[in-house]
Amino acid sequence: MTDKKKTTIVLFSGDYDKAMAAYIIANGAAAYDHEVTIFHTFWGLNALRKDENIPVEKGFMEKMFAKMMPRGADKMGLSNMNFAGFGPKMIKDVMKKHNAIPLPQLIEMAQEQDVKLVACTMTMDLLGLKQEELIDNIEYAGVAAYLADAEDGNVNLFI
Amino acid sequence: MTDKKKTTIVLFSGDYDKAMAAYIIANGAAAYDHEVTIFHTFWGLNALRKDENIPVEKGFMEKMFAKMMPRGADKMGLSNMNFAGFGPKMIKDVMKKHNAIPLPQLIEMAQEQDVKLVACTMTMDLLGLKQEELIDNIEYAGVAAYLADAEDGNVNLFI
Amino acid sequence: MTDKKKTTIVLFSGDYDKAMAAYIIANGAAAYDHEVTIFHTFWGLNALRKDENIPVEKGFMEKMFAKMMPRGADKMGLSNMNFAGFGPKMIKDVMKKHNAIPLPQLIEMAQEQDVKLVACTMTMDLLGLKQEELIDNIEYAGVAAYLADAEDGNVNLFI
Repeated sequence: MTDKKKTTIVLFSGDYDKAMAAYIIANGAAAYDHEVTIFHTFWGLNALRKDENIPVEKGFMEKMFAKMMPRGADKMGLSNMNFAGFGPKMIKDVMKKHNAIPLPQLIEMAQEQDVKLVACTMTMDLLGLKQEELIDNIEYAGVAAYLADAEDGNVNLFI
Repeated sequence: MTDKKKTTIVLFSGDYDKAMAAYIIANGAAAYDHEVTIFHTFWGLNALRKDENIPVEKGFMEKMFAKMMPRGADKMGLSNMNFAGFGPKMIKDVMKKHNAIPLPQLIEMAQEQDVKLVACTMTMDLLGLKQEELIDNIEYAGVAAYLADAEDGNVNLFI
Repeated sequence: MTDKKKTTIVLFSGDYDKAMAAYIIANGAAAYDHEVTIFHTFWGLNALRKDENIPVEKGFMEKMFAKMMPRGADKMGLSNMNFAGFGPKMIKDVMKKHNAIPLPQLIEMAQEQDVKLVACTMTMDLLGLKQEELIDNIEYAGVAAYLADAEDGNVNLFI
């Protein structure tokens, strides 16, 4: 047991802007010395995908999911004003101009600050995602592990 | 007053996948002996609708809402990749293949585990939903009752 | 330090219905004597925009965002059944019929109850929103201030 404050985030959304919000809060909390966990489930798993194509054996449905879902943080769309993919470019241009940190770097920063990144094994199974397809240095767990972290959490968010 | 840990979820969303996430967390927390409440408001009320047509008297707008909103958990769409209704079938096929529990059964399981299912009376009113149209063994309450549960909650999520 | 219960809401969404839910919970919590903060970030900032056009100097991208985003609470769309802008009118008609309080009045009520309304300066910067364009009597802060409130919060939600 530790006296550190705890922040847990369930990242369910596969939207670039929502994932940014999740990682900005997580990095902020880590900077304030919280123990931070981001539990990636459903579409939130896309933020953890490697951007190259990893050859793994998959069934038909799993292949379809793999094709249709964005491969990695940089390819995710917006929750709002996505404009068939034009919105993310606008946001990224504007972020560049304002020296805001893009999502892939926010994820790296989180790893450097020891934010615990967890991939939900149940939804990995459902969506047919394999460990080889996800970035390194993350953990794999289910809802029980999430709840064990969250029940002592000071800030628990579902994004 | 009880020493049990408490989990509360506001289910605002009417998406099949988000409702699944809500009920998986709720069932997990109940299995870990938390006192769990799911407060269904706005589109989240659709998860509690009976799947048959219940003849109740309604005004014009209420009839329109009733027609346009999904009748019950099994008819809800996805938050992502809905593809005009094709997405939910894909997800359900994939869930079947992986022996994942479909939403209507997750709701039954929650009731068996004494998860408190609450329908928000204010939004029932707005959307013209009557008690006869919702499944049995649920409670009816407003935001005050939600807050009374949540202020002692260990895990409070808005989904 | 105070013994008051604390509620914090991150309002990320720019949807009328989600903002309504946020403000109904916030007003409820304030009525139960919680200290309440709504931290408006990303699209949630639109709820704080004045409805008139405020002439401020902006770059090209910022002008585009300003044009495309709803100007104020009353102009926001729905998360669901928006029907190209028809949905909000339906909801507002139905709200009027049931004497439900429209979003702009919920915001006023929150201010009267001393709910702390905060605009996220980082996303204001990104979206090119200036203080003159937002309603009066709000605060300006970043993620650190949010976390300081949330870590002592009893109810912390992300909407």
